[in-house]
Amino acid sequence: MLNEKNVALGKVRSSIRELFEYGKKRKEEIGEENVFDFSLGNPSVPAPPEVAEALKDIIDNTDPVALHGYTSAQGDYSVRKSVADYFNARFSTALGADCIYMTCGAAASLTITLNAILNDGDEVITFAPYFPEYKVFTEHAGGKLIALPAVAGTFKPDIKALESALNPRVKAVLINSPNNPSGVVYGEEDIRAVAGVLGKYRKEHGSSVYLISDEPYRELVFDKSVKVPCIMNYYDDSVVLYSYSKSLSLPGERIGYIAVGDRVREREELYAGIMGAGRALGFVCAPALFQQLVKRIHGVTSDISVYKRNRDVLLKALESYGYTVVRPDGAFYMFVKSCEPSAVAFCERAKKYELLLVAGDDFGAEGYVRISYCVSPATIERSLPAFRALIESYK
Amino acid sequence: MLNEKNVALGKVRSSIRELFEYGKKRKEEIGEENVFDFSLGNPSVPAPPEVAEALKDIIDNTDPVALHGYTSAQGDYSVRKSVADYFNARFSTALGADCIYMTCGAAASLTITLNAILNDGDEVITFAPYFPEYKVFTEHAGGKLIALPAVAGTFKPDIKALESALNPRVKAVLINSPNNPSGVVYGEEDIRAVAGVLGKYRKEHGSSVYLISDEPYRELVFDKSVKVPCIMNYYDDSVVLYSYSKSLSLPGERIGYIAVGDRVREREELYAGIMGAGRALGFVCAPALFQQLVKRIHGVTSDISVYKRNRDVLLKALESYGYTVVRPDGAFYMFVKSCEPSAVAFCERAKKYELLLVAGDDFGAEGYVRISYCVSPATIERSLPAFRALIESYK
Repeated sequence: MLNEKNVALGKVRSSIRELFEYGKKRKEEIGEENVFDFSLGNPSVPAPPEVAEALKDIIDNTDPVALHGYTSAQGDYSVRKSVADYFNARFSTALGADCIYMTCGAAASLTITLNAILNDGDEVITFAPYFPEYKVFTEHAGGKLIALPAVAGTFKPDIKALESALNPRVKAVLINSPNNPSGVVYGEEDIRAVAGVLGKYRKEHGSSVYLISDEPYRELVFDKSVKVPCIMNYYDDSVVLYSYSKSLSLPGERIGYIAVGDRVREREELYAGIMGAGRALGFVCAPALFQQLVKRIHGVTSDISVYKRNRDVLLKALESYGYTVVRPDGAFYMFVKSCEPSAVAFCERAKKYELLLVAGDDFGAEGYVRISYCVSPATIERSLPAFRALIESYK
Repeated sequence: MLNEKNVALGKVRSSIRELFEYGKKRKEEIGEENVFDFSLGNPSVPAPPEVAEALKDIIDNTDPVALHGYTSAQGDYSVRKSVADYFNARFSTALGADCIYMTCGAAASLTITLNAILNDGDEVITFAPYFPEYKVFTEHAGGKLIALPAVAGTFKPDIKALESALNPRVKAVLINSPNNPSGVVYGEEDIRAVAGVLGKYRKEHGSSVYLISDEPYRELVFDKSVKVPCIMNYYDDSVVLYSYSKSLSLPGERIGYIAVGDRVREREELYAGIMGAGRALGFVCAPALFQQLVKRIHGVTSDISVYKRNRDVLLKALESYGYTVVRPDGAFYMFVKSCEPSAVAFCERAKKYELLLVAGDDFGAEGYVRISYCVSPATIERSLPAFRALIESYK
């Protein structure tokens, strides 16, 4: 009688969540400091002090009727203008306020964009490893997610596979860099190659495939030499999805945006589709107080040096123990090769050492495990002997 | 190439929005005090001071990682527990925290609930006049909205029509009281009658029809004698949708909840469907800071005496000029009979007197206009001669 698909979806707790609940129980049993929980991608670093200061200042100095009232569906004009201005200054684009649509975070950016673009039976291409909700969101919008197999060793986009997968049903290519779960950053050459294939397809077939970049981890890169290229500079039909969840450690507040490229061929139509989808899905507007916060906080991030230190310590240690790790340049994830063919079995064995790792199978890449190193530096230090013992158990 | 339905939806500005934009322009031309804008349902009374105090206190005294972090998808446990406890104390129900699902406001409550319940081709019955987005939300969830014609003069549910409209495709009856646009409150006898029909249907057919009460205006009733009955006390398969937008004047902050009745026959299945629908639509969780606010602010409302005074002044004046008005017991809307057959033409003539009214056609009830009296008392006073002149122009 109910909607079977949504009932089933609500009943299946993701295996990540499952592991997190196991970890909670285990911590009660043997003490929090003895469980090394690398399961969740929840920022461990607090929001920067500027957030609390700005929130209180906005509350104290804004007329409450205006502050807490409905904004336009696409977001307050001055907020959108400030987002566009900041984006343009940083990425040399020419976005107007009418290219920006404020959302309740990255998930909302994704569902709204997919519902604007897809008709029943349309396809969306993504590259494994990929965030598992992409499938849920694409299917709810009536589409089908085509996940191209991971390129083991680099976890970069497989350009040849992309070329072969394109067909008239494909409406979008969805990328995620810095990547969850691999931490890999797609460089300029990767974006250029993806854009090249899509540009060629557009020239040959007349119709466009949107390139959608889901980049909540954009600010989480740790080395000066690593850049996250803005896709709009490489491909006209580009849409960037952003969220402040990770950069400002505000995942519960649900604030982000969709940026429609200024050179998108059907820009007004697409923006109208986004407006319509946001309305039909029930979003009304992004949270008003946090919209105002965004205006005051461009360029500010949490103290991401903690993540960099965690990465450096963990990467060096794991490599010295003999693990194969693809160097993660961003986000707070590390993708490590399983010591046996089944990553699921490997994760089970890791539990004996109180290490909670997520099998890559969930992300469409078997034989690897994800380590979410958004934990305290002390947890990293204490976990090292366990990682060493785990790999030694295979020798 | 894009999703035509959502593009079309995004392009059609609602006629209410259209009128609001006209009003903005007109105010620039002739001065704000000379335009009587009754178009929008945006609270005119500020949030109570407790809101700002609580928000700042929460920000100052909560660990930011915990405060701004992800909550469970259904909302923070302590928040849900507090909502259930408050609800139970007030309505003599027996809800647990696992009956409550925190949402990004009333629209989200509606889309999530409808997506949990409906399969393609299912029907939802509502009573005209009704909030126009019900159609958008129902159709996006794959369903069809059946709006039963308004009972002119009372705007109460048409029980006979409900009885005839029930069929195996009907999965829910959606009511809205206090009602937008009529301001009418469904009394105990109305709810009892609706529940009677649904209970009889359940007994005869074995299958249940959910009764869904969308009640963002629950706290906005102005007379001691008027009560908004809790549907859960009259019908087992009941779901209540609430939002703090109107009672606390926080429409831009997007915070509300779904309460699944403790006697719902398939309660766990329905709750799972709600979890799945929230996930598929991209909601992740309700804004975390405002979830914490909810816990501290049960029973508090904005100063609704302003709305009561507006209603009293306007109602008395309009009746004395000769208008036919259905007495509004709640919300901040008044439904007034048009002075000519076409309410659209009547609204056009009203504009000449700088009165911005919304034709009932948008709400599925022709021949009436909606007055949103959530405006300053001064606007009410200044508008009275215009209302008098308008009706006199028909004599």
